[in-house]
Amino acid sequence: MEVAEDFIQRLRSVIGAGRQGLHEPTFNGNEKRYLEECIDSGYVSSVGEFVNSFEHKFADFVGASFCVALANGTTALQLALTVGGIKPGDEVLLPALSFVATASAVVHAGAVPHFVDVDADSWGIDPSALRRHLEAIAESRSGIFINKETGRRIRGLVPMHTLGHPSRVDQLVEIAEEFDLLLVEDAAESLGSYWGKTHTGLFGSMGVFSFNGNKTMTTGGGGALVTADPELASRAKHLSTTARIAHQWEFDHDEVGFNFRMPNVNAALGVAQLEQTQGFIAKHRTLFNLYQEAFSGTALGKLKSEREGTLSNYWLQAFELSPGEAHFRDEIMRACIGQDVQVRPLWKPLNGLAPYLSYPSAPTPVTEDLYARVICLPSSPAIVKGM
Amino acid sequence: MEVAEDFIQRLRSVIGAGRQGLHEPTFNGNEKRYLEECIDSGYVSSVGEFVNSFEHKFADFVGASFCVALANGTTALQLALTVGGIKPGDEVLLPALSFVATASAVVHAGAVPHFVDVDADSWGIDPSALRRHLEAIAESRSGIFINKETGRRIRGLVPMHTLGHPSRVDQLVEIAEEFDLLLVEDAAESLGSYWGKTHTGLFGSMGVFSFNGNKTMTTGGGGALVTADPELASRAKHLSTTARIAHQWEFDHDEVGFNFRMPNVNAALGVAQLEQTQGFIAKHRTLFNLYQEAFSGTALGKLKSEREGTLSNYWLQAFELSPGEAHFRDEIMRACIGQDVQVRPLWKPLNGLAPYLSYPSAPTPVTEDLYARVICLPSSPAIVKGM
Repeated sequence: MEVAEDFIQRLRSVIGAGRQGLHEPTFNGNEKRYLEECIDSGYVSSVGEFVNSFEHKFADFVGASFCVALANGTTALQLALTVGGIKPGDEVLLPALSFVATASAVVHAGAVPHFVDVDADSWGIDPSALRRHLEAIAESRSGIFINKETGRRIRGLVPMHTLGHPSRVDQLVEIAEEFDLLLVEDAAESLGSYWGKTHTGLFGSMGVFSFNGNKTMTTGGGGALVTADPELASRAKHLSTTARIAHQWEFDHDEVGFNFRMPNVNAALGVAQLEQTQGFIAKHRTLFNLYQEAFSGTALGKLKSEREGTLSNYWLQAFELSPGEAHFRDEIMRACIGQDVQVRPLWKPLNGLAPYLSYPSAPTPVTEDLYARVICLPSSPAIVKGM
Repeated sequence: MEVAEDFIQRLRSVIGAGRQGLHEPTFNGNEKRYLEECIDSGYVSSVGEFVNSFEHKFADFVGASFCVALANGTTALQLALTVGGIKPGDEVLLPALSFVATASAVVHAGAVPHFVDVDADSWGIDPSALRRHLEAIAESRSGIFINKETGRRIRGLVPMHTLGHPSRVDQLVEIAEEFDLLLVEDAAESLGSYWGKTHTGLFGSMGVFSFNGNKTMTTGGGGALVTADPELASRAKHLSTTARIAHQWEFDHDEVGFNFRMPNVNAALGVAQLEQTQGFIAKHRTLFNLYQEAFSGTALGKLKSEREGTLSNYWLQAFELSPGEAHFRDEIMRACIGQDVQVRPLWKPLNGLAPYLSYPSAPTPVTEDLYARVICLPSSPAIVKGM
C-alpha cells in the first residue's frame, strides 16, 4: 500500500470519516451561563468578578502564587520580559523551534532574540548545547555576561514546552543561575504538563500561558502570567492597566503602561473552560493512546511520547517520521489536507524566517531535522467520544 | 446655598437618587443571543463570522471603506502608526489633553510623543497654535521636516476628539499636508461624531476607535482601525495576525507581527451593541439636554456643547466651571463622590506626567486651564429612561 494511504487509514481509524480540524475547542460546560451572568453583571471590560475568579482558579490549577490575566500569550511574554528587567538591546535566548510569537514578544519587549537549538528527545532547549554555546560566546565582565560577538548583554532565557512536552527545565534553571539570566517559561502550550511534580511555567521567575482558540482551554483570546513573586505580579498588573496610580478621580500614571488586561467577558468563558480542563487533558492522553495503537507496527516512524519524569498534556499529537522517511512528509500532509484532515509540520525554524534572519543564532541542526520529519495530527478532545 | 450642594441638586434632578457611575454600558439587545451563537459556532478566537460581520457593519456605520477589528484602541493606534510608516525616533504630535493611551501608543510604536495645546472651544488640537509651533521649531531639509531643537523628524499628527467633540480636523488636515505629516485620528471617544457630514476618524490616513466598557458601545475590550486605503487595511490585518504568509500548512511570517486581533467572542458582543448604538447616541444627546436644563441659570459655569458645523456624540457630559470658579472643582467632585456619584476631572495634562516629562512639548496653557475647570458628569445612556 502506498505510504500516504496507509498513514491516512491509520489516522481515520481514530478520527473517523469526514472533516477534521487540527485542534478545535469544546464547549460543553457553563460557557453560556457564565457569559449571561457576565452580561447581567454589566461588567464586560477590564474589571469584573470573572477576571478575579479566573486569576484565582488558574493560579490554583497550576499551583502558582499569583496569576495576572492578560490579552493573549504574546503580550503576556512581552510583559514578563519587561517587568523581569529586560532592557532594550539585551539578548534573550529562545529555541529556534517555537511558534513565531515567542520571538516577536522578545522584539516587542525591545530585546534581541538569540536562537538556540533543541534536543531530539525533549523538543525543548538542549541544555548541553546551550551551555557549550554560552561558554563559547559569553564573557563575564564584572559579573555581567556579554555576547563577545555582538557586545550586547545576554540577559534572558525563554524555554518553550513544545506541543505540551516539558523541556529540561531542571537543567535550564541551573544554567540561568550560572549565567545570571532571567528565566521566563513560555508555557503557552503546556497547561497541564509537569516536570516532576511541578507544573510547567513555575520554574522561572515567571511563566506565561495562552488561551487562544487552539489551546487546551480557551478564553477566545487570552493569556496569563504566573509568578511566585508578589512584586512582579503587582507590577505586571499595574503595567497592563495603563500604569495608573490609584486615586478617586485623578488620571495619573507613573510608567508608560499597556492595555493588556483580559476583559471580563473573556474571563467568563475562561472560568467555564477551566472547570473542564482536567477532562480535556484526560482526552488528550486517551487520544495519544489511540493514535499510538493505530500507528503501531509502522516502519514509518513513531508518535511523540512523554519523557520519563515528565507528564505531558499531549496538547498536540505529533508523528515523527524516521530519519530515512522524511521525504514522505509533504506527500502525507498533502494527502491528509486533500481529505480535509488538518495536519501541519512543526513551525519553520525561527532563525530562518526573513524578519529574524539578522538576529544571533547558535547552530540549530536538531530544530531543522525535527522540522523536516514531524507531522502534527488532529488533536481536538472531541475526537475522543463518551468520556 | 452652598455651591457643591447646589451642583449636586441640579445633578440629582437628572440622575435621580442613589449610586451613579460615570459611564456604564447598556445590554438590552442581542448580546446573549449572539454570544450563544458564537459558542455554538465553535469559533471564539481570532477567526469567525462575527469578526467579519462586525468589521463590515462598523465600516458601514462610520462610512469607512475598510475596518480592521483589534484588541483595543491602544493597540489600534500603535498599529496605525506602524503601518502608516512612523519609524523609531520619529516625533508624533498629539494633544496634551487626552487619555494616556494616546501617548503610550506612540511610545509603543517606537516614536517620540510631542505634545501640543488644544483650543478652548473644540478641546482638540488648536490649529493656529500648532502652526505657530511648527513654524518656530520645524525646518524643512530636502522636504523632510525636522525638529530643530531635537534633530528628529516630525512625522505624525494624532488629533483626538475630546469626550466626543470633533476637533478642527479640517484645518489639521491642511497642516498635515503642508508639513508632510501622517494624520491618524484618535476617534476612541467619538463614535457617532461628525465634522460636517463626515464621521470623525475618516479625515486622516487612518482613524482608530475604542470599544472599552466605558465607551459608547463595547466589545468588552476592543478597538478598530478604519481607512479608505486597501493597502493600509490589508497590512494592518496582516501585522495584527502574526504577519503570517498564507499557506496551507507552512508557518512562515514576513514581518515581526503582533497578536492584536479582536476575538470572535468580543465581536459577537460588538455586533449586538452596534445594533443599539444609534439609540445610545440619541440618549447621550437627550442627556445633554436634560443637564443643560438642570444647570440653566447657574453662574458657576456651563455644559460643554457641540460646536457649530459639528455633531457631537456627547459621549461624556462635561461641566465647565467659569474661570473665576475653578477653585470649586475639587470641593464639588468630593461632594459628588461622597454621595457615590462618579464624576472626574479631565485627564492630567500628559506632558506633566512623570513618564512623559522628558518628551518635547509646546506650551499648553489651554490644556492646563481646562484641566483645572472641567468636571465630567455621569453619562450612562441608562440615565435616560423610556426611549
